[in-house]
Amino acid sequence: MKKVWMAISVALMGMLLAACGSADNLNDSGKSSNSTKTELTGQTDSGYYQGVIKNGHYQTSKSRGVSVSQVSNQLNIKSFENGLLNISKKEFSTNKYVFQEGQYLSTGTVENWLDRKSKSNPTGLNPTKTKKSGTYVPNYLSQISEQDFMTANGQKISLSGVTIGLAINSVDYYTKKTDGPTLEANISDAQVKKQGKAIANRVLKRLRAKKSLKNVPIVIALYKQASDDSLVGGNFFAYSVNDSGKTKVSNWTNVNEKNYVFPIQSGKSAPNKNDEDAFDNFKSQVQNFFPNLSGVTAQAQYSGNTLNGMNVSITTQFYSQTEIISFTQYLQQAAQKYLPGNAPIDITVQSTDGIQSFLSRKTGEKNFTSHIFNSY
Amino acid sequence: MKKVWMAISVALMGMLLAACGSADNLNDSGKSSNSTKTELTGQTDSGYYQGVIKNGHYQTSKSRGVSVSQVSNQLNIKSFENGLLNISKKEFSTNKYVFQEGQYLSTGTVENWLDRKSKSNPTGLNPTKTKKSGTYVPNYLSQISEQDFMTANGQKISLSGVTIGLAINSVDYYTKKTDGPTLEANISDAQVKKQGKAIANRVLKRLRAKKSLKNVPIVIALYKQASDDSLVGGNFFAYSVNDSGKTKVSNWTNVNEKNYVFPIQSGKSAPNKNDEDAFDNFKSQVQNFFPNLSGVTAQAQYSGNTLNGMNVSITTQFYSQTEIISFTQYLQQAAQKYLPGNAPIDITVQSTDGIQSFLSRKTGEKNFTSHIFNSY
Repeated sequence: MKKVWMAISVALMGMLLAACGSADNLNDSGKSSNSTKTELTGQTDSGYYQGVIKNGHYQTSKSRGVSVSQVSNQLNIKSFENGLLNISKKEFSTNKYVFQEGQYLSTGTVENWLDRKSKSNPTGLNPTKTKKSGTYVPNYLSQISEQDFMTANGQKISLSGVTIGLAINSVDYYTKKTDGPTLEANISDAQVKKQGKAIANRVLKRLRAKKSLKNVPIVIALYKQASDDSLVGGNFFAYSVNDSGKTKVSNWTNVNEKNYVFPIQSGKSAPNKNDEDAFDNFKSQVQNFFPNLSGVTAQAQYSGNTLNGMNVSITTQFYSQTEIISFTQYLQQAAQKYLPGNAPIDITVQSTDGIQSFLSRKTGEKNFTSHIFNSY
Repeated sequence: MKKVWMAISVALMGMLLAACGSADNLNDSGKSSNSTKTELTGQTDSGYYQGVIKNGHYQTSKSRGVSVSQVSNQLNIKSFENGLLNISKKEFSTNKYVFQEGQYLSTGTVENWLDRKSKSNPTGLNPTKTKKSGTYVPNYLSQISEQDFMTANGQKISLSGVTIGLAINSVDYYTKKTDGPTLEANISDAQVKKQGKAIANRVLKRLRAKKSLKNVPIVIALYKQASDDSLVGGNFFAYSVNDSGKTKVSNWTNVNEKNYVFPIQSGKSAPNKNDEDAFDNFKSQVQNFFPNLSGVTAQAQYSGNTLNGMNVSITTQFYSQTEIISFTQYLQQAAQKYLPGNAPIDITVQSTDGIQSFLSRKTGEKNFTSHIFNSY
């Protein structure tokens, strides 16, 4: 674990601005700001980017909260953002670049882009609602996320790259009239790809029209959003790295990632039967431990047939703190013995009172560490 | 961290019993059981006891669930059990002894003992309800917890010590008639001590009447339960170590532990003003980080003027996973800088969706480790 606490004082005379969220623009366009004090969050793990703090406040996104208010399955939000960070890391390494929440697309812009194109909203990236034939045309674009990557240059930090994530619906939910029943418009994988790539080109062109974004690399990544009843988020399926000045995507890199819920539903299968069996064995061992049955489920992510990681969730009723301690210690052995090796695994243990303990094994580690939550 | 996976097979022919919770008695009275397979949970940390597993099932307490069903402030349960373990550790070290949930006091026994003494319940340890004068007499005893400590001896494990915790009310809640208003009977500290010690002597005598408990050391610990509106549990104030055969407590050791909630309410004070200031500084730094205000509180435990540990709870609204990552990394720095050193500290970060991340610094460690919960 590498610890860096870089404190960059853009101006020694930095004054603490009283207004919250009043982060100044960065000096990437050559202007200098005399009253902004820029600091970084520090880094707890080399896998995370440091974030930008301006005048003591976290510099929040200019389009903060748009996804939270518009996307109904919250798993699609976390999965989208985490996946986007992973794609960014391929291009912008965490030890060279600093993360800044998107500062170039405002709430208004993102809301307009996510809306349907119309006379009153000419920048809408979703098609108009119905064709002449009366057939419903689904909304394709569901989320836009901007991540800015900065580098330090003497006393300044400046923009050195941008990643844009575009989340495309696999199902569009709509009603024919107010208070009418919710209908589902399924969107085929072929359409998700086609529409996603078309939207990406339009977005890239628009970004290049902004002076600050003309000459930085822009990564665009495409995500297929999961349905509202899914217990895992969707998945990224392609991304493009667009060098300075490029206004058209010339090359897409495929991403072969997919998420699964364990235990696998009957009739379906995981990419790796061994992992499926391993999880089932673990589950039955754990459920045998207490007289009261524990709920044991997991989210698993695969790249092709390779397990990227697993989040196991165990819910059970505890009658004492000593039961929680014994159960957690038992889990550490059982997880080690039964769960797939070589992939990072998190296990959270919950009761109706919330989280009680958790165990974790990181990439490359052999043993699980555990933590039992205490109360005085 | 010491890892021990002791698997003690009491009988090689151990059969897996299908009935849950059907743990056989241990062979402490010299009888041998041919069908019980005893295993231990393993140990994730040298500060925890290994627990006893019988035939694949955790050996639950014979009075399992009594406290959960009878005590209204759940903080009193966790704090009571954790505190009792800490007292047990003074007498029965975690690397020599194995923990077994109480097997000698059954649900029926504990329920009767916790009830008032009456013609139909002669073993009740609480006084009859009213004096001749009509004055209400409070219930003193609120919880009884039994912890058994075993040692391995060849292929067997046998009972080598017992700890009994007795929780005494500081407030007894009652109604004069069904559906009447809840009234509070406050019990003075002097009464809590006096009544607790008297009950302890009666309990010790009763335990010695059981053949299996005649010749093992019995630790009895007294806990003062917090009121129902408290945001921390109560505290242990005394314990006694009673050698084999002793039927009367000859000596009490005082415990000077107390729990506090930070920020300290106006008019009250913490045992150490520096800690109070440290927490207040940390709180205002953290609340300055986001435009939306975070709730920052803590439980703190003191032995005299020395901080034993702190559980900080931060609740805030997040708009993205990147905000959670940046906030957690920032907290690691801020906690290190502002919070009191030398004591173990846990910090949990919650949103309305539950826990998002947590940070922890153990006894003797200099730095906080952190974990950010992920989702696929």
